[in-house]
Amino acid sequence: MLVDNFATPYYAVIFSSVKTPNIEGYAEMAERMWQLAAEQEGFLGADSASDEKSITVSYWQSLEAIKQWRHNVKHAAAQKLGREQWYAQFRLRIAKVEKNYGMG
Amino acid sequence: MLVDNFATPYYAVIFSSVKTPNIEGYAEMAERMWQLAAEQEGFLGADSASDEKSITVSYWQSLEAIKQWRHNVKHAAAQKLGREQWYAQFRLRIAKVEKNYGMG
Repeated sequence: MLVDNFATPYYAVIFSSVKTPNIEGYAEMAERMWQLAAEQEGFLGADSASDEKSITVSYWQSLEAIKQWRHNVKHAAAQKLGREQWYAQFRLRIAKVEKNYGMG
Repeated sequence: MLVDNFATPYYAVIFSSVKTPNIEGYAEMAERMWQLAAEQEGFLGADSASDEKSITVSYWQSLEAIKQWRHNVKHAAAQKLGREQWYAQFRLRIAKVEKNYGMG
């Protein structure tokens, strides 16, 4: 099930990545971060899909909420491990959602 | 390989979907649409990942370029098949990318 649409405007954090072969500890950390994000003020929802690439898009009420999440101490530690060990490549984009529609 | 970042601001079309069991013809159409999108004026690049969900994020120079692509005749026919047959759920969000960074 996909997360619903939200009242515009809101913000999307589009995180795309390609992992290294060394993904020890990754799945557990991803699960912990998913739960922690959901507890943050201003978090609206997120969807994720993975094959050779992974794309996670999380939705937030404001840029301030994204900033708080980015600087969350546990999240910052996870980001450091990601850069040093798990990600061969990543891109992070912060975007203001202006329109949304859907079905189902 | 992920597409590179681009000079901000630019636009992202975040398309998330869950498919029906009836995906006959989907893969061929997706491939054709991927090629056709790449030929459009204002198209910058796209990344995609799929498991139970699919997320495709395409990047565009302007809202006008997105509008042209949305109304492309072949693309409109593909969208109709998607709504009628392939997608159990979808969400389409149009967002203005304000910041991007990355690694690798």
